[in-house]
Amino acid sequence: MTLVTADLAMSLDGFVAGTDVSLDNPGGHGGEPLFHWIHDLASWRERQGMTGGEENRDSDIMREWFDATGAVVMGRLMYDTGEKPWGDNPPFRAPVFVLTHRPAPSLVKQGGTSFTFVTDGIHSALEQAKAAAGGRNVDIAGGARTVQQFLRAGLVDELQLHVIPVLLGGGLRLFDHIGPDQRKLEVIRVVDTPRATHLKYRVLA
Amino acid sequence: MTLVTADLAMSLDGFVAGTDVSLDNPGGHGGEPLFHWIHDLASWRERQGMTGGEENRDSDIMREWFDATGAVVMGRLMYDTGEKPWGDNPPFRAPVFVLTHRPAPSLVKQGGTSFTFVTDGIHSALEQAKAAAGGRNVDIAGGARTVQQFLRAGLVDELQLHVIPVLLGGGLRLFDHIGPDQRKLEVIRVVDTPRATHLKYRVLA
Repeated sequence: MTLVTADLAMSLDGFVAGTDVSLDNPGGHGGEPLFHWIHDLASWRERQGMTGGEENRDSDIMREWFDATGAVVMGRLMYDTGEKPWGDNPPFRAPVFVLTHRPAPSLVKQGGTSFTFVTDGIHSALEQAKAAAGGRNVDIAGGARTVQQFLRAGLVDELQLHVIPVLLGGGLRLFDHIGPDQRKLEVIRVVDTPRATHLKYRVLA
Repeated sequence: MTLVTADLAMSLDGFVAGTDVSLDNPGGHGGEPLFHWIHDLASWRERQGMTGGEENRDSDIMREWFDATGAVVMGRLMYDTGEKPWGDNPPFRAPVFVLTHRPAPSLVKQGGTSFTFVTDGIHSALEQAKAAAGGRNVDIAGGARTVQQFLRAGLVDELQLHVIPVLLGGGLRLFDHIGPDQRKLEVIRVVDTPRATHLKYRVLA
């Protein structure tokens, strides 16, 4: 069954990026501690076309996400900032649907990644992503504003947060503008490592 | 050694109370899910002068806090809202220092609880609390604004959050106004129960 997931690294104080996020600085000022944990994981390196790296529980969790994800939805800023670093063989290896107001022709990359630009909103993007996911999950990859739109619309089934042991003191909050409706969660799994506490929840009604 | 601790229940989206917190509604509108988890714990009931209740890991964690805490610091609003429900034998059983701008005579209650009103700021309150703690910890009990003052001043040694599996969508944020300084944390312990994920951190430099 295709689930809709969102999976982000977050500081204990709730930030998924630093301050002043922009095209030139997608992680934001001060956001570095959020992104260190993945760089030397074997599963991450593998998807970047590199060998080696650490095999540990963090790496397993990252690999699990790669294996489970059959299609991806992201916002336009995330695409614009990722396009160059992802290169000709992006790490997704799955169809990616980019929310945008500017129509653009689809792009087919190596390794199974394609980018389709969706101009008619989140429901359309999700429908297309589900159809393309081959029974695997659709992940709402980011950025924060995109995840917030899906949370607000009640469209996220599972939420995984990699809670990084740091207080950033400021930045881009994940849980902002998610609407006034309370949503109960159910813990699926908690995995604690020195790098992060990985909290996985089912979003209930 | 006396540590300075802060120990709060928080929704996954970072709220320690609902919206429109006031003297009449200290938990705020919609804040109820944050406070359910403690009501039937044996250790909590015991401190309320009741018997029975559930003996489980949540109860153990609550008891650990009671046992470790030798003095308490709180804000005036917390005191004002708690004064009546706490009654003649408040659950603290330790000296409590209340931050306020309005001087008032100290109160001695049953069971070891006293309330001392401190008008010359957080450092003074902390100094008095440390002196009174008998080598046990000083806990900064709340509310959010008071904890934020101590975090901003770099005065908190350990932080325990009981993360409740709910998205409130709004309310009083714990991690707001804590200043621009990044603070690294170190995980001391993670305990996961159906009611809450208990995250305990050491606050590093």
